[in-house]
Amino acid sequence: MKRPTMADIARRAGVTKGAVSFALNGKPGVSEATRRRILAIAEELGWQPNSAARALSDGRAGAFGLVIDRPAPSLGVEPFFMQLISGIQAELSRRGVALLFTLAEDVQAQVAVYREWWASRRVDGVFLVDVHIGDPRIGALEELQLPAVVIGSPVASGSLPAVWNDELDGVRLVVDHLAGLGHRSIARVSGPAELLHTRQRSAAFDAVTAELGLRAVTVEGDYTGDRGAAAALELLDRPDRPTAVVFDNDLMAVSGLSAAQQRGIGVPADVSMLAWDDSPLCEVIRPGLTALRRDIAEYGAQAARRLCDLAKGLEVGHLQVEGPVLVQRGSTAALSPARV
Amino acid sequence: MKRPTMADIARRAGVTKGAVSFALNGKPGVSEATRRRILAIAEELGWQPNSAARALSDGRAGAFGLVIDRPAPSLGVEPFFMQLISGIQAELSRRGVALLFTLAEDVQAQVAVYREWWASRRVDGVFLVDVHIGDPRIGALEELQLPAVVIGSPVASGSLPAVWNDELDGVRLVVDHLAGLGHRSIARVSGPAELLHTRQRSAAFDAVTAELGLRAVTVEGDYTGDRGAAAALELLDRPDRPTAVVFDNDLMAVSGLSAAQQRGIGVPADVSMLAWDDSPLCEVIRPGLTALRRDIAEYGAQAARRLCDLAKGLEVGHLQVEGPVLVQRGSTAALSPARV
Repeated sequence: MKRPTMADIARRAGVTKGAVSFALNGKPGVSEATRRRILAIAEELGWQPNSAARALSDGRAGAFGLVIDRPAPSLGVEPFFMQLISGIQAELSRRGVALLFTLAEDVQAQVAVYREWWASRRVDGVFLVDVHIGDPRIGALEELQLPAVVIGSPVASGSLPAVWNDELDGVRLVVDHLAGLGHRSIARVSGPAELLHTRQRSAAFDAVTAELGLRAVTVEGDYTGDRGAAAALELLDRPDRPTAVVFDNDLMAVSGLSAAQQRGIGVPADVSMLAWDDSPLCEVIRPGLTALRRDIAEYGAQAARRLCDLAKGLEVGHLQVEGPVLVQRGSTAALSPARV
Repeated sequence: MKRPTMADIARRAGVTKGAVSFALNGKPGVSEATRRRILAIAEELGWQPNSAARALSDGRAGAFGLVIDRPAPSLGVEPFFMQLISGIQAELSRRGVALLFTLAEDVQAQVAVYREWWASRRVDGVFLVDVHIGDPRIGALEELQLPAVVIGSPVASGSLPAVWNDELDGVRLVVDHLAGLGHRSIARVSGPAELLHTRQRSAAFDAVTAELGLRAVTVEGDYTGDRGAAAALELLDRPDRPTAVVFDNDLMAVSGLSAAQQRGIGVPADVSMLAWDDSPLCEVIRPGLTALRRDIAEYGAQAARRLCDLAKGLEVGHLQVEGPVLVQRGSTAALSPARV
């Protein structure tokens, strides 16, 4: 099959190639009726501008980039990225913008990808996720002046606009839920401490539990199932065992729950458990995991809209997205009278 | 920061822009020593050819495309796609080829994406996954003559080259393992029947169990946790309850295992369970799930190599990748004497 060309459209419409070019490029030189007829024929034939020619003539690549640096195995089980990508895609595909996606081993490799994309004009902008404290990607993107939107807190986004949620909202929902069930001693297994949102969540957790006069402890996790199980058992073996444990991701929570059950510790009879970021995992495990749910696809869509505006040269500020909701399942329950 | 140009390289090297162009494009007209010096300066400055100009001059987009039509939520928990993408990426990034990635709602929407990519010369080729019986994507890609590699069986790949594994290999490992433990009645919860690899796995399962004189039943699943739990309970409630259940994906297996435990049915004491495609989920659940493991990243890398060759105009045939291995964990055990 031959790609449809402007000549094909001209032949079908009975006009010159020049007239077709005027009509497709929205320039004067053809009547409104002819323009409409030409556009209809172009659509019927499935004509599309050559993406490279368009990129050269208007200086835009027509693509945005996303680089993720988490290891592929742990990426695969966390629904966060696929949902984020699906939200980004929904917004970009309506505008005919493509998404370039790649995995990089670490932050330095990501910076190298940005430089290469920038130098070869591969993308008109990039999305940044998993921002670290003192993240070298921020300075690199500022220096390149490559449009970029941070999906994460504005605290570490430098001069780049951020699409973010306030960790305090989620922490309040979690702690209020557990305190409402009578829990006075709550532990948390966090994500990696070098991630900014982990630190922010830790600070919020300390503040909210202190405000309510609860005993609180956070141990560091790394989002893997192995660490989730080990951290849960470490907490549950303490003489001052907490009566509730919250986990910063679903995989650690499922693993922690399974490990407790295997040790003969009942969930929620002996300890309540709760997961950050609801997922099908939280639904399939028994008991089902009470979890915080965010609209991650909407998060991605908002970031995509911001990046489109930014790439057009518009001023773009930070945007705080809607807070999470708590989905109650069987893994959290009122503290049994014996343990009060 | 300004993008480095050929003029910058010429100034630094003390040569003309023409000499730089000869050197970078591998054309005669400069000495070998000068060429080496120019290339070293280009690398030092981080110069990259403009991707759009290169695409126009050599007629290549420098990108391949991947469209996935599974719903984003179930995608997120299955590590298959992220591992596949990481394998594809590893191969493409070494060659400076980008990956365009998008999600489409159904097969028709995928075909529309292919047509648009083809018409606008966005990609030099595409990867096809989850091939259906009578899949309209195959005919559409043949018609467009867009280079494409099917990640799946050659049975339904039409004239397109396939990178595939033989379902019979995995089925033999699974059935031999269970038969070796004394199981004589094995059930299976399959993936959607419209997927070709589901049908092939079903045919292989029937053949291998018949060969060994085992009782076998397959009920259809859909890869979701809900269906995995329901199908497992349906099988376990039968008067002729099977003593082993195998699941076509990890999410259904985890869910089926949890549902059985909640019903008071011991795994593996009362029933053995086994998952297709090992994942962190299979590791974190208790007992750990015995699972089939494939090198999915290598699968992706092989497909990427084939597509690179195909896009260069080389002849490419089908490629059968290495078979899976069985990872034994706690969910399968010898049939207890009482149940023999």
